[in-house]
Parts: sequence; C-alpha cells; structure tokens
Amino acid sequence: MHVIAIGGSDAGISAALRARELDPTSRVSVVVADAYPNFSICGIPYYVSGEVGHWRNLAHRTHADLQATGMDLHLDTLATHIDVDGHRLQVRGPDQNLTWLDYDALVVGTGAVPVRPPIAGLDDLGPDDGVHLLHTMGDTFALTASLERRSPRTALIVGAGYVGLEMAEGLTARGIAVTQVEMLPQVLPTVDPELGALVRAELDRHGVDVHTRTTVRRIARGESGGLHVIGEGPDRQPVAWDVDLVLVVVGVRPDTELLVAAGATTGPRGAVNVRPDMATGLAEVWAAGDCVTTAHRLLGTTYLPLGTTAHKQGRVAGENAVGGSATYAGSLGTQVVKVFDLVAARTGLREHEAVAAGFTPVTTQTAPDDHKAYYPGASPITIRVTGDQHTGRLLGAQLVGARSTETAKRVDTYATALFHAMTVDGLAQLDLSYTPPLGSPWDAVQIAAQAWVAEHQPRPTH
Amino acid sequence: MHVIAIGGSDAGISAALRARELDPTSRVSVVVADAYPNFSICGIPYYVSGEVGHWRNLAHRTHADLQATGMDLHLDTLATHIDVDGHRLQVRGPDQNLTWLDYDALVVGTGAVPVRPPIAGLDDLGPDDGVHLLHTMGDTFALTASLERRSPRTALIVGAGYVGLEMAEGLTARGIAVTQVEMLPQVLPTVDPELGALVRAELDRHGVDVHTRTTVRRIARGESGGLHVIGEGPDRQPVAWDVDLVLVVVGVRPDTELLVAAGATTGPRGAVNVRPDMATGLAEVWAAGDCVTTAHRLLGTTYLPLGTTAHKQGRVAGENAVGGSATYAGSLGTQVVKVFDLVAARTGLREHEAVAAGFTPVTTQTAPDDHKAYYPGASPITIRVTGDQHTGRLLGAQLVGARSTETAKRVDTYATALFHAMTVDGLAQLDLSYTPPLGSPWDAVQIAAQAWVAEHQPRPTH
Repeated sequence: MHVIAIGGSDAGISAALRARELDPTSRVSVVVADAYPNFSICGIPYYVSGEVGHWRNLAHRTHADLQATGMDLHLDTLATHIDVDGHRLQVRGPDQNLTWLDYDALVVGTGAVPVRPPIAGLDDLGPDDGVHLLHTMGDTFALTASLERRSPRTALIVGAGYVGLEMAEGLTARGIAVTQVEMLPQVLPTVDPELGALVRAELDRHGVDVHTRTTVRRIARGESGGLHVIGEGPDRQPVAWDVDLVLVVVGVRPDTELLVAAGATTGPRGAVNVRPDMATGLAEVWAAGDCVTTAHRLLGTTYLPLGTTAHKQGRVAGENAVGGSATYAGSLGTQVVKVFDLVAARTGLREHEAVAAGFTPVTTQTAPDDHKAYYPGASPITIRVTGDQHTGRLLGAQLVGARSTETAKRVDTYATALFHAMTVDGLAQLDLSYTPPLGSPWDAVQIAAQAWVAEHQPRPTH
Repeated sequence: MHVIAIGGSDAGISAALRARELDPTSRVSVVVADAYPNFSICGIPYYVSGEVGHWRNLAHRTHADLQATGMDLHLDTLATHIDVDGHRLQVRGPDQNLTWLDYDALVVGTGAVPVRPPIAGLDDLGPDDGVHLLHTMGDTFALTASLERRSPRTALIVGAGYVGLEMAEGLTARGIAVTQVEMLPQVLPTVDPELGALVRAELDRHGVDVHTRTTVRRIARGESGGLHVIGEGPDRQPVAWDVDLVLVVVGVRPDTELLVAAGATTGPRGAVNVRPDMATGLAEVWAAGDCVTTAHRLLGTTYLPLGTTAHKQGRVAGENAVGGSATYAGSLGTQVVKVFDLVAARTGLREHEAVAAGFTPVTTQTAPDDHKAYYPGASPITIRVTGDQHTGRLLGAQLVGARSTETAKRVDTYATALFHAMTVDGLAQLDLSYTPPLGSPWDAVQIAAQAWVAEHQPRPTH
C-alpha cells in the first residue's frame, strides 16, 4: 500500500500522519513543492513581526519529527500530472527531471495561491522593489530580506482581512508606520460593521492609518527608491501615498490546476468538488484543504479555506486513503484573529449569509462583561448573536473583546452549540464554568443569548 | 397572582426576576433573612482580600435595581413556617413580630449553611476570638472587622476546597502568613490528585503552609490573645499552631428546616427532593438552589450546590410559579477556581464517580500548550479526559492551567460536548477557533481528546 500526499501544508501532512497512524504498514510519501514541510502559514505574521525568534520555530513538526513517523518527504518537488487510470503521479524533482511515482491512493492538498488584485504595476514589481505578496515561506523570506535591506519607515498594506490586520500589527511592532487600504467599507469584513468598527478603533489607537472604501489602482517606482501608490477613495476621490514597502494581502483562491487537469470538477469559487469522505470522484484520489470546496453545516457547499478545516479534512482523507470510512463533519466557519490587544471571533452565519441559506435571521448585540464587574479587570465583550426568528435556532455569533476576556475560547462554546443545532434559548441550559475573576453565573455567552431571546422570542417556547 | 420567593441569594432572586419578566402582572415578594439581597457570595473572598473596593459592589443588582423590576423585598425577614394547605407563609419581620403572607405560588431558596466540623472549642469561640466561619455577608463583616481589629499576622484556614483556596489567596494578598489544613490527602479534593498537586505547588510557591491528611481537633484561646490550634497529622502525629485568626471553611449542607417541617421529603445529603420542574411535591411550592437535590445529567440525583445551578433552577422555578412548564436540564458539575495565577476547572465525572454511575471510565492526561509554542507566552494546560472504555462517550474533563491559558472557558467546550453526550472521538469534529497567539489548529481541548482516543480506542469507530 503506497499513499502519496501532495502538499507540505496542513492538509497533506495531516493526511500523511493519519495514514501512518492507522496503518503503520503503509508506505506514505509526501510531495512538497518547497523545502518547508508542515510550516504554520498562520504564524508568518509573527515571524515577520519579530515575535518568533527563528523561522524554523514556525514548523508544527521538524523534518526529523515527520520522518520519525515513517513518512517519506520529497522536498522541492512539484506534482505536475496525475495519471488517474495509471495510478501514478508525475513530479518534477529538485534536479528538474520529470519522474513518475506509483500510488495506490493519492491525497491532493495543493492549497491556495494568493489573489493578485488588478493593480497596475503589480506584475512588473516584486520583492526587489519592495512589493510583496505573502503566502509561502519563500514569500516570507523575501519580505524579511526586504525589511532588512530597505529598512522601511513606511509601508502600505493592501487588504484588511485576517492576514492584513495581523501584518499591520506585525509591521507596527517593527516600528514601521503602516497605511492600511481596504476596498470594502470596513476592516475585517468577515464580521458585521458594528464589530469591524471596534477593530478599526484598535488600529487607530495603535497608529495604523486606515483607509476603507479605498481601492489601490497602481503601484509605481517613486522618488529615491520608494514606491508611489495611487488609488481611489470614497466617491472616487484620488488618493496617493509614497511609501517604502507595499504588501498585498487580499485573500486566496484555490490551487486546482493539477486536479482539474486530471478531470476533477469544481464548485464554489472554483474549488474542487469533494464528497463528505473527501473523495474527488477520480478513482483513488482524495483531496483536502484550501484547494477543495468546504462542506458547511449550515450553508451546504461553499468555499472557506481555513487551517483548522484543512487539518480535519486532511485527517479524513488520510484515513480513507488507507481503507477507512471517515467523513468530514463540516465547518462552521469558526475564526478568530488577534489585532493588537483586541480579539475578534465568529462562528456560524451572519444575517446575509443566513438569508441566502434560507433562514430568517435576526440579531441582537450586547456587551456583557467577561467577568463580575466587582473583580478588577472586568472588560466588556461585544457579542452579536444571530438566530432564526421562526425556529429559535442559533445561527451564529460574533464576538470582539480585549485579549484578557477569553473571547477566543468563548466562541468555541457557540461553535459547539451550533454543531448540535441548539436553539438560542437552549444555551441557557448549558452548565458553564463560573468564578468571579473569570466569568459570571450566567456566562457572557449566555447573557448574550438571553438578550436575543428577550428581544425576539420573549415568550417561553418549552 | 402573588408569588413569594424565600431567599435573597441566587435561587430566590432568579425565581423572582423570572416571574416578573414573564408575567409583569404578577405580584412578586422576596423574603430575605438579612439586609443583603442578591449579593454574590462567590465574591466574598475578593472583598476580604481587598480587591473589591466596597462591599456594596458585591451585589449582582442594587436594591434599587431589584425594586425597579417591580418585586417587593422584605429584608431582615425570616420565613418561619409554610402553611401549605392555607397557601400562606409565616415570617418574622425586623420588628420580631410574626405575620402571615398569603401566596398563590411559593419558591423556596433557603440555600445552605456552613458545615461546622467536630472541632472542640469551635462552639465556644467566635468572631470576637478571631474564629470565623464564612458564608453570609454578616460573616464577611465579622471577618473584616476581625482583620481590622486584630491585624493578624498569621491565620489558619481549615479546609482546602474552593472557598478555602480563595481565602488562602485573599489573606496572603493582605500580607497574612497562611497555614492551610486539609483532612484529605490533597488540596482541591474535587479534582484528581495529579491536578491537586499542581494547585498545591502554586500554594507553596506563594508561601502558603499547606498540611494535608491533617485534621484540626481543637481550637483554644492561646497566649497573649492568640489562638492555639491542635490537630492530627499523617499517621496520627500531633500537630499544633499558634495563630492570630482561624477560618473554618469545610463546605455547606442544605438548609431544609422550613421545607421539611412543611412535609417535603429529602434525598442525597439531606437536600429536599425536587422534580425536574423544581416542584417539591407540596402544592404550589417550588424550591431551588443549595437547599435542594441536583439533577445531574450523568449521575442522576445528587447534591451539588453551585451558584450557576441555583441561578438556573431558580429561573425554572420562577417560570413555573407563574404557570410555565420549564424543566431544569441538569448539572454537569462544571466548576472553576482561580488560585493565585493558576486556574483549575472540571466538568462531568471523575473515574470513581463514573464507576458509581455504572460507566467503565478510563482517563488520559496530557499537557498541550494553550497556543502555538512559537508565539511568546505559550503555557501548558494539564488536561485529564475521562471517557467510557466501551462506548467511547465523553464522561468528564479536568484542566489546570495558568491564568493566561483561557482554561476557564476551555472547560466550557467540554461541558457543551458533555451536554450533548458526545464521544471523546467526536470532539475532533468540532470547529473550534484558532489563531497562533490563542490556540492551535487542533485546540488543546481536542489534542487531549485525541490522546485519550489514541490510548484507549486506537482503531476508528466510524
């Protein structure tokens, strides 16, 4: 039995680990496009910021750890073609020669590639000019080299999603004055505007110069080695900045070339369709992670690339590659980001997503304290609970609180409740922990749910 | 419609609030034995420590807040007799006169009273001598008066449960050298010894002189106004201390006199039997909180007095008192305590409890980091997961971690999983939040569950 996993990131490595764990007699090979298997892509902003001492620390497991599990790693090796009928994979190795590897089962975790927005000049400029995208370890080294070489005093970040915000913090930590430009009306557009405004205030407080409703149109070499960035602000007013460095982080798209060429079909956002067992429909070919569609427990099939999901899907694919019958239980889109001293988290659906999924959502916002106000350090968590007006079912929750408020793990209570399709009212029945320095007799999670019930469902439904 | 709630603590006030909320036309009276309705008993250690500025801050709601809900408060009024057939309650008011109050529905939340252990001298000594029990606001004022009057340099705490540990921290914060004496082999006996040892180390680190397997036998007035405490250590060796203050906090027992006199039956630990709707079996008499038995989702009927439970039960009783049909969904015994910089939490069952309930429990201990090790400040959470060897069902979890580790809210994920009778293996399916500064792609909660599965159930059970 020979399992090949393509991809050295979360999905591929998770599949390989699970296959080895369940069937120690199986031969497992991992084809890794670069030299950095099992690196934490999510950790890159903290290496750039200087908080992670050595880039090697970003590895979830070292090369030696991985080899100790019994898997073979083919580094600097690009998967170039899948011969489905022949059960073999063509690869180009570090010597640039093409060779074929036979497999019994294949797990494809090619991941995603950064979106290149339509900015004039972007294709002509690169790391040598101080213009960066950021997705791989290679991108990371290019960026840190640029930071050392150019010693930028100013940087402009295109995009204010998760990575954009983390990089705003990271570059600020390096003493760089950051301008952040976001096309949409708010930063962190994955949460409601009321919460995006709290994140925006945190950026302002730390000196990040934020421009929303603003689109970067052109990047050009400027005076004395700098970069000249031209854009359009609200009402199409022209805006321009001269900066030392530009970072473009506006999201990712699935890297599906290999699978599509082999005959796989695609779904939302062009991601490869997979079944609940992560099978692609191609014989003995599974796929997982950022290159495939995401089964969402409330939305059905969507595209929602997240590291947590890649780990779970990879594990399912690896199990099935060695003869198992696992299925991916589905995502709830649970996410969290730290922005300076603030934490923003969400799980489940926002109203517009819930409407699209056929629900009748209503939302209530409250700001209960993280713990009893009489104990020092109490701090409000702004919580937006969304539930279905007709059935009372919990549909989603969004939270923003100070880092001290355990907001990151409070969202997990909502996520677990959502997993079990609880009603909002039902959350009052959960037996959650309480001690005055860390909570309240009804946890903040329950206070927010009760506020929703009081507003939208004031009569008991028992 | 006239609802009377007896008790100014969590159960009584919760019942009164819920009755007023659901039926604003109802008349609701609360009979409160002292002058401190809706005070947070759990907060007392933080007032004694000096962390809560004014004792009034310990009130969940002020007197005015409560009156604004439309309830009538009868303060310094003791409920002395329930005339079930006559639907009336006898009370002794602040003027010491006995009067009768008519009711349509009665909710009894008389709570608990502190256990007085069989220590010679305890009945003869009191606050004037520097010997204290601690349960009510009255006890609190007596203790703080004693602290001010005696300016103790040393104190001995009998008991190392939740309140004993919080008081060890609180008195230490006041600069008092604390000796802590516990009859059982470990501090915090509500968790497994492996975790009790971590709490013990934290006490040691902060200078608390801990004596386990040690029983206090006698307290006597000592030289120069102090107290002489005599006990038996391990192997019955005699031990003795001279201290300035003694605090006895060894748990509580249900205060059931009123209900039992009215004909209520009692169950575990002498608590009053209640049905899932918190009815006592006496016509139109409900009861809730520390005076009643606790429905436990895994154990059946037990006695487990907790503020969180009292709030939930009181709410159910209040709803039913005005004609509702709510039921208490049951406790999981979820608890958390902060001891200096450590947090200890549990939910569900430990092995011996699970055996008694007919399960076949096995436990795995791990210590995953709270967040990715490469990000500064990562700290292990020691987690003991208990599951059923035959069915794979999650039975309980115990966690000890530094205060920064969000341990208090991580236990809530286990509690929510337990509420839904998940398997340990099933926890891997939960979509929990991740960002490197606050978690890992498989959350610590899931890593601990996977370790249990790897040890006890290595083959997939899908």
